[in-house]
Amino acid sequence: MNNPVTLVQDTVVLTPEGSSQRQESLAIEVPYTVALNDEEIGASMVLETALEEFGAGFLFGQGYVTRIGQVREVLVCPEGRISVYADVDENMKPKEVIITSGCGGTGKISREMLEGAFDPLREYSITFAEIRDFIRQGLQASPLGRETHCVHGCGFWSEGKLQAYFEDVGRHNAVDKIIGAILLGKFSAAGAIYTTGRLTSDMVLKCARIGIPVVMSRTSPSSLGLAIARRAGVTLAAYARPERVNIFHAPERIV
Amino acid sequence: MNNPVTLVQDTVVLTPEGSSQRQESLAIEVPYTVALNDEEIGASMVLETALEEFGAGFLFGQGYVTRIGQVREVLVCPEGRISVYADVDENMKPKEVIITSGCGGTGKISREMLEGAFDPLREYSITFAEIRDFIRQGLQASPLGRETHCVHGCGFWSEGKLQAYFEDVGRHNAVDKIIGAILLGKFSAAGAIYTTGRLTSDMVLKCARIGIPVVMSRTSPSSLGLAIARRAGVTLAAYARPERVNIFHAPERIV
Repeated sequence: MNNPVTLVQDTVVLTPEGSSQRQESLAIEVPYTVALNDEEIGASMVLETALEEFGAGFLFGQGYVTRIGQVREVLVCPEGRISVYADVDENMKPKEVIITSGCGGTGKISREMLEGAFDPLREYSITFAEIRDFIRQGLQASPLGRETHCVHGCGFWSEGKLQAYFEDVGRHNAVDKIIGAILLGKFSAAGAIYTTGRLTSDMVLKCARIGIPVVMSRTSPSSLGLAIARRAGVTLAAYARPERVNIFHAPERIV
Repeated sequence: MNNPVTLVQDTVVLTPEGSSQRQESLAIEVPYTVALNDEEIGASMVLETALEEFGAGFLFGQGYVTRIGQVREVLVCPEGRISVYADVDENMKPKEVIITSGCGGTGKISREMLEGAFDPLREYSITFAEIRDFIRQGLQASPLGRETHCVHGCGFWSEGKLQAYFEDVGRHNAVDKIIGAILLGKFSAAGAIYTTGRLTSDMVLKCARIGIPVVMSRTSPSSLGLAIARRAGVTLAAYARPERVNIFHAPERIV
């Protein structure tokens, strides 16, 4: 599917010197419904890229899909529906739900998820030089951020290379696309994730649940984001730049 | 209620020159349940400020409260519950819901809201000098943004002055606090709202529904945010700075 993801709009720029015309590029936001085994679960505004990954990751974020290997097939209908077919327990329904502070394609988490235990993480470490390459290559792979100022980006690095970098109108959706790619078997969770968005609880939680050992952000964590990283044993790095990173928890994975 | 809203955390800063210690300030994110007439409607992660306003605005964002004057009382229990008492139609339940791309305390909108008509807006215009004062005073009123890099701000300007400026871990929550203040009768909707967050559809929609004529952002709108501004006749201004603003729709209200 190759629908356009941006459009150009004439704007009027006002400054103390007067007004002028200018063209701005806008991210195209489209509503998509996500269905699990033909049952509609929810809908989200998205940027129309990596929708198979988004559909799988969305259901993980909502607590319906919980493990790698459950998703069998994802069909995207350009009229606005993502149909995910997965082997899930028929009785699986997320418990009491908290709507989160996240840019929220999947801005819902259950109290159970927030308080539950985490599986042990796979062994992984990343060098400082790799972080530099990760962020630089991620920037190159994400023109829409600079073009529209209305999308977040999220990338994944493992085995010494950038495995994927996705953009979306929501910071959650971009992370969901990466998590969806892991669920679809495109790469293993043993690596580092980088997001341009803030690491609030919901963001760190889904990365920890899928088993990503290193979670990085261009910007900052919240108190609860850090608390979840501590509980899960996840390395949490913030203010990540090619030449600098600020580690809030578990620095030993950055070597 | 005066719970602390930030905490200080030791971090390890890595640069090519080596590592050093540094203290960073984190925004404290807390889960709150919102109840309407003693029935639990949802929950959200919030920054613990302006919670009465948040409770009212949250229910507006979710489609339960629809008009100024409906909210009678809001009680905040510091254990994590906001109880809103409002005169609502008992059968009022939002229809098919779309989870939005927004930083999403109230990241849910119904298709009905997205497609419905808007009431005519009240007459209002703002001068370029007022916009400058609005943004400058808003910056002064919001220390947490600079301190934590993990909150969004939202302010309201009318009758020649800054009426309120709130911060929250979600850009939606901050807007909801302003909308809640309008619902609670603290000021009229005939004014200008400014958010540090992106103007995705959900953000513009709730401002238009409550009847705010001028909607401004430090950053950009999405395609659907602009489309909703057009349908509602709302002035949409982006990339707003003290000395510059970029008008995407209805420039006639900025004089």
